[in-house]
Amino acid sequence: MNHELLYPDLAVNDAGWLTIAGFDTAALAQEFGTPLMLLNEEKIRARCRVYAQTLQTHFPPGSMALYASKALSFKHIYEIAAQEGLGVDVVSPGELYTAYRAGFPMERVYFHGNNKSDEDIAFAISHRVGCIVCDNLDELSAIDVQAGTAGITQDILLRLTPGIDPHTHAKISTGQIDSKFGAAIETGQAEALLCKALSLKNVKVCGVHCHIGSQIFDFTPFCDALTLMLRFLSAMKEKHGYEAERLNLGGGMGVPYVAGDPSIDYAANLLTIAKQLDEQCRAHALTPPALLLEPGRSLVADAGVTLYTVGGVKKIPGFKNYVSVDGGMSDNPRYTLYQSEYTVYLASRMNDVANFRCTVAGRCCESGDLLQEDVLLPEPRRGDLLAVLTTGAYNYSMASNYNRIPRPAVVMLTGEGAKTAVRRESLDDLILNDL
Amino acid sequence: MNHELLYPDLAVNDAGWLTIAGFDTAALAQEFGTPLMLLNEEKIRARCRVYAQTLQTHFPPGSMALYASKALSFKHIYEIAAQEGLGVDVVSPGELYTAYRAGFPMERVYFHGNNKSDEDIAFAISHRVGCIVCDNLDELSAIDVQAGTAGITQDILLRLTPGIDPHTHAKISTGQIDSKFGAAIETGQAEALLCKALSLKNVKVCGVHCHIGSQIFDFTPFCDALTLMLRFLSAMKEKHGYEAERLNLGGGMGVPYVAGDPSIDYAANLLTIAKQLDEQCRAHALTPPALLLEPGRSLVADAGVTLYTVGGVKKIPGFKNYVSVDGGMSDNPRYTLYQSEYTVYLASRMNDVANFRCTVAGRCCESGDLLQEDVLLPEPRRGDLLAVLTTGAYNYSMASNYNRIPRPAVVMLTGEGAKTAVRRESLDDLILNDL
Repeated sequence: MNHELLYPDLAVNDAGWLTIAGFDTAALAQEFGTPLMLLNEEKIRARCRVYAQTLQTHFPPGSMALYASKALSFKHIYEIAAQEGLGVDVVSPGELYTAYRAGFPMERVYFHGNNKSDEDIAFAISHRVGCIVCDNLDELSAIDVQAGTAGITQDILLRLTPGIDPHTHAKISTGQIDSKFGAAIETGQAEALLCKALSLKNVKVCGVHCHIGSQIFDFTPFCDALTLMLRFLSAMKEKHGYEAERLNLGGGMGVPYVAGDPSIDYAANLLTIAKQLDEQCRAHALTPPALLLEPGRSLVADAGVTLYTVGGVKKIPGFKNYVSVDGGMSDNPRYTLYQSEYTVYLASRMNDVANFRCTVAGRCCESGDLLQEDVLLPEPRRGDLLAVLTTGAYNYSMASNYNRIPRPAVVMLTGEGAKTAVRRESLDDLILNDL
Repeated sequence: MNHELLYPDLAVNDAGWLTIAGFDTAALAQEFGTPLMLLNEEKIRARCRVYAQTLQTHFPPGSMALYASKALSFKHIYEIAAQEGLGVDVVSPGELYTAYRAGFPMERVYFHGNNKSDEDIAFAISHRVGCIVCDNLDELSAIDVQAGTAGITQDILLRLTPGIDPHTHAKISTGQIDSKFGAAIETGQAEALLCKALSLKNVKVCGVHCHIGSQIFDFTPFCDALTLMLRFLSAMKEKHGYEAERLNLGGGMGVPYVAGDPSIDYAANLLTIAKQLDEQCRAHALTPPALLLEPGRSLVADAGVTLYTVGGVKKIPGFKNYVSVDGGMSDNPRYTLYQSEYTVYLASRMNDVANFRCTVAGRCCESGDLLQEDVLLPEPRRGDLLAVLTTGAYNYSMASNYNRIPRPAVVMLTGEGAKTAVRRESLDDLILNDL
């Protein structure tokens, strides 16, 4: 293979097969079947450590990275986060329960979401969740009531929208004022939410939160968000004597998916934020709050590779070539949803010339079920193995049983071998709840 | 409530609550919880009978409707199809297995898909599936091999693309030449597939299949497809002496989702096809083949209603109002995928004036998780019940556990009461396969 591979943990062995972290994809497909979700565990741990160590060393005490587990949620991933010293961000009782059952320390759990029911809040409180990120006034009252019922004071953050548009895809931008999330600073609703919260007996307002979007490569929007949030906190100190212990800037740090995407030096960018935090707090005469970040995609996306087996190869003269694989939008709906770009390799013949232009299609009975269009591969044959890179985030977590296709197994590539973290669904699993 | 309700099985009771088939949505939400997928079973059965009876009475012997079960697949729905005399179209071993476990007669099962693996084909043959709809040359060889191994002759249809663009959404158009499905007539690939199939020992070519798209209100495209398919069959009779026993025109018949969508008289439209079939077969001197159709959406979509509980109601001055509910893209990804239109009612206050313009948002941590924009409702309050209509097709079947949200229960509204067909997923179901 003449071209450089997208990530340093990828290589080609003597037989011409793709390897990941030294594991032969041929052997993995043979042992675990396809479609197969692979995760390089050491790569995830190393990225966790970049965040954990930088936040611990260069930020105010208590600063921490919270793994945004909606990106990829199963028991073992919470074990990794716990071992690497991260907190986690959960967005539902289901994520909370998965973390709980994995033995994750509940005091490091932040419970998010734009719409928590009274039952959800009671569930979180009964599991002694560390912090609830309160989205709105209705929810604030509900948290106060439930905490009162439980006889505790619940730590909360307030979710605010600073009015940042980070220029990413509209569906994954969340920092602008027009959002289903949080209370806007600009409209005065953030201040109203804070004042109400400060008046309640059963909650402690530990600080504020914002999340500006997703797949952000340029760290300027984070610095802008920091500026707006500190300006708000400064005003609140002046007007209401309120000082925040914690400032949560959310997630959204980008990950390169294809050659030509910018690369990111996460540590260097975090240092930029640290410097800004220090300088701006001085300027506002604020005690620097502990900084929280919520990396999700940037911890797991580029550690993931999905392997598929090629089925039909279709050449339509004058039109297009289609290569169909044994998965699709059921395990990876991101191309169908967002036309997301992915790097695709023919894992079984990496040394062959990639001169066959094609659309990689899934097996679902739906024309929109494509994994990628306009891809160059060696001409695939039935039985070849195909690899889609960077599938660690928002693939397995968004997977469905559309067409009653079982969800793939998730296998961790570790120093002690390849280990199943989530078993492949069986046909009987599909009818488990059918009466 | 002054305006007319979208469907005749909907009404408003004295308390101002929406009723479906006479069932009070307040009581249903109370008994089964929300989000809740409701299906009016008698409405499904009545629609099944329109297809079954029209095809039996006005078409050549052997004509049949096959329920395209990718629209909504669980055991009880196959029981309904069996009882109403339909066949079914399955697109995966999972759908096939669900039908099998429901006791569906396997000889009335058609196995579809653009990418069947050797294992899938062996699985179908071992379950004695009535007919395999063969998509391409690679697959044809695989079917022949597997049938030979099993010592049987497998009935097959050949999937062709007639070159029809029915002018629906690009993601759900499948009849055009540039498709991942089937072999194109225009390129000669359909003829090549037929000739190859006729040369094989272990398959019997019962006929041909096409599927031109989805949500088609105008039956002209079906008549056009019929014309092209019969022209092809006439040519094949002349050139190769081949006569098809069965002609499968697929599915795609539209369903109105909102006021202003055209209504369809399915029976009348079927009669138009019957007339065309008769006339054109005479013109081509062809023995009229049994006609197969694959209605999916048009059997189940408008029998479905999803109930949600309202959580946060957010008014952003100068921007928009957001009403968040306790489900979203996890149980209904169609707005996120296709910006599909839905009719939304505030089920708990149907008699209040609908003058609150809002976006109905789901509970997933994703800005794109919206169920509908620009909806007029009475101003909702936390705890109100909201109904989204026409959710019977491609909602539950496309549901995921994104954000680890359990999939809702599916409840059938029948003459003998409301009966659970699929239990609500539990939190423990979510971690069933996590190691």
